[in-house]
Amino acid sequence: MPIHLSTAQPDFETRFAGMLSMKREDAADVNDAVAAIIAEVRGRGNAALVDLTARFDRLSLTPASLAFSKAEITEHTAKVAPEDRAALAMAASRIRAYHARQMPEDMRWTDPEGATLGWRWTPVSAAGLYVPGGQASYPSSVLMNAIPARVAGVERLVICVPTPDGVVNPLVLLAAELAGVDEIYRIGGAQAIAAMAYGTETIRAVDKITGPGNAYVAAAKRHVFGRVGIDMIAGPSEVLIIAEGAQNPEWLALDLLAQAEHDADAQSILITPDADLARAVEAEVERLLPGLPRAAVAGASWRDYGTIILTRDLEEAAALSDRIAPEHLELCVDDPEALAQKTRHAGAIFLGGWTPEAVGDYVSGPNHVLPTARSARFSSGLSVMDFLKRTTLARLTPAALAAIGPAAVRLAASEGLSAHGLSVSARLAVLNEDQG
Amino acid sequence: MPIHLSTAQPDFETRFAGMLSMKREDAADVNDAVAAIIAEVRGRGNAALVDLTARFDRLSLTPASLAFSKAEITEHTAKVAPEDRAALAMAASRIRAYHARQMPEDMRWTDPEGATLGWRWTPVSAAGLYVPGGQASYPSSVLMNAIPARVAGVERLVICVPTPDGVVNPLVLLAAELAGVDEIYRIGGAQAIAAMAYGTETIRAVDKITGPGNAYVAAAKRHVFGRVGIDMIAGPSEVLIIAEGAQNPEWLALDLLAQAEHDADAQSILITPDADLARAVEAEVERLLPGLPRAAVAGASWRDYGTIILTRDLEEAAALSDRIAPEHLELCVDDPEALAQKTRHAGAIFLGGWTPEAVGDYVSGPNHVLPTARSARFSSGLSVMDFLKRTTLARLTPAALAAIGPAAVRLAASEGLSAHGLSVSARLAVLNEDQG
Repeated sequence: MPIHLSTAQPDFETRFAGMLSMKREDAADVNDAVAAIIAEVRGRGNAALVDLTARFDRLSLTPASLAFSKAEITEHTAKVAPEDRAALAMAASRIRAYHARQMPEDMRWTDPEGATLGWRWTPVSAAGLYVPGGQASYPSSVLMNAIPARVAGVERLVICVPTPDGVVNPLVLLAAELAGVDEIYRIGGAQAIAAMAYGTETIRAVDKITGPGNAYVAAAKRHVFGRVGIDMIAGPSEVLIIAEGAQNPEWLALDLLAQAEHDADAQSILITPDADLARAVEAEVERLLPGLPRAAVAGASWRDYGTIILTRDLEEAAALSDRIAPEHLELCVDDPEALAQKTRHAGAIFLGGWTPEAVGDYVSGPNHVLPTARSARFSSGLSVMDFLKRTTLARLTPAALAAIGPAAVRLAASEGLSAHGLSVSARLAVLNEDQG
Repeated sequence: MPIHLSTAQPDFETRFAGMLSMKREDAADVNDAVAAIIAEVRGRGNAALVDLTARFDRLSLTPASLAFSKAEITEHTAKVAPEDRAALAMAASRIRAYHARQMPEDMRWTDPEGATLGWRWTPVSAAGLYVPGGQASYPSSVLMNAIPARVAGVERLVICVPTPDGVVNPLVLLAAELAGVDEIYRIGGAQAIAAMAYGTETIRAVDKITGPGNAYVAAAKRHVFGRVGIDMIAGPSEVLIIAEGAQNPEWLALDLLAQAEHDADAQSILITPDADLARAVEAEVERLLPGLPRAAVAGASWRDYGTIILTRDLEEAAALSDRIAPEHLELCVDDPEALAQKTRHAGAIFLGGWTPEAVGDYVSGPNHVLPTARSARFSSGLSVMDFLKRTTLARLTPAALAAIGPAAVRLAASEGLSAHGLSVSARLAVLNEDQG
């Protein structure tokens, strides 16, 4: 049974705080194992990758077969049904169009003192994308990670995807092809992260690594952070739906279950001022759950973390949503735009009953890699910006240095940094001589 | 003696790689101590802060005196010399003007299928800024961290600055006042980071923590990351100067020394195709070093990490610079704009001989919190963006769902996520009924 809360309960604050601080993830401590794997790859390169892939993926590789060849990729992708290919192509095209609008502009201006200031954006040179193997090997995630990198202008784009027992997901290869990936390696786990961060004889190191993975992959990403950039370490997924009266309870139930079927640690939350709707949605969840192929997973998530909160009105619902800062926020209400204005912290907002969160996972265009575990309070989903960096620019004329340099000399003195001051005053001295 | 390299050396690649991989920082392992301090603050709140401040800062506080009062702040800032106040005010105003231009815009558009897409930016609600005590208590860093937060629209801005033995830096308080900081606490170390991340009876928790600090502060920031956002963990500072013939050797020497005086782990690098200039600059460094108040620090940095590299030409210099990806890049050449176009990875670029890096530390306007240790390959300096987050928006009409929904259903099926597919197809079914 899901958690039932109502803001009318006298102990609501305590219960809500308990729900907020619920730990949904028991990250296994795999740091020692991961450190050993990374050291092995750094020390032995390709040979380590071959050994580790034999051990973990029961797959016999050679340095030459670490990468998929063009011919192999074509052979696999040829198996994809035309309807799947068309769906993936539509998704790729919509994701590309959305992310193309995110490209930021360079700026340059000259201020009244004569200082020319600004910044410019340049892409990361090489990026590596991790794709899990097995059940969670999602072609949609390939598109969501690789397309922003390509739009940003990353020159070299690498994928590592394990193929346990040699099983290849043709849709993953097709997604990589559609996204314009340059190299695909059939390695996984911490060894793949190590190979991308440090390089081997055949895999050149990259500058940034993104993509989801299991506890080993997450620990390896933390481990190599600093050596390369990484994206966020994602926690279990979550959806929060704010709904009112006229909405279709079956649709809402399916949206809650779509989140729950991801993972037993996923969380689905319904907040509504309408007790009848809450009851109807819960009944629909119970009715639909047993028919799902992933009923065991979805049922565990709904039983352990599913939450229904009754509020006085929509304003109160919006305020609670902000305290949760959900990854996905569905506003299934008559005026979703007005309600969106009343919330501030969410990874992605889905406005109105015709925008189920699942379209956002695949084809609407925005990225589906979003901040979890309340981190939408301070972070954003994956975007083109994750594959760009900003360099600030400054150019002073002698007159500009004469105008602002003395303040720098003064501040350097107050901070006890005399060479800082001298580096400015030596130039000012030459200026003064020239004028003398 | 600094490291001398030349691209004409047959073993240059090996030597350069050795220089690149030189470890300049021996981070003490303080994780256990930090974990204990954080646990103590979480468990005992204010009482822990009072005890830890007595122990580490030899300062007796009460919960009521954790914060500076308005009257105390005024009393301290009144002591600041008018010239220092004016210099700080100029710096604040220029930093504000630069960062105001960084505010990104919200976007919203409707695509041909009828999907209204976009994103919006919202500020982090509360930010905490750590300011070190003692020697490295820099008012300029207060401005560089606090002003971007204010420009972003952060509602509540908190500073923690330790005052060991009760010694207060009036310029730090003045900088906080100029930047519009709301609360200032006289606590430091891991306990300050814990207080800002988890809150105590009097210090409300924040959502994002930025600012420099010692090994304890850095470890504490890593520890609370996830609970709150953090900025980068900065390594020792570095400058790379590319110079050619006509430049003033004294200026270049002072720019190298300005970097070296920060820290014995700092690194100053000169790259030039002109052997005479290289010799002249090195001689100037030797001449000027002994006269510096911080000669011991600057001398150690120059001796251990200072580097001079001779190249064939400026193109080669630019290529080496990109491999180093320096925090600060000074282009002291005749055509710095052209050379800037040939480089890609740097935190900040200072164009031409009249733009010493020290003006960037204080008054030019761009942020002085910049990526170190080659991380400019994949990350950027502090900016307004660090205090904002992006929420993606999507709103479909029934027609838009009819157009793109079937592709989502297809992809959900290929990923084995049936509730995802049902959440879309249940809506499509209603649409088809309506039309039937």
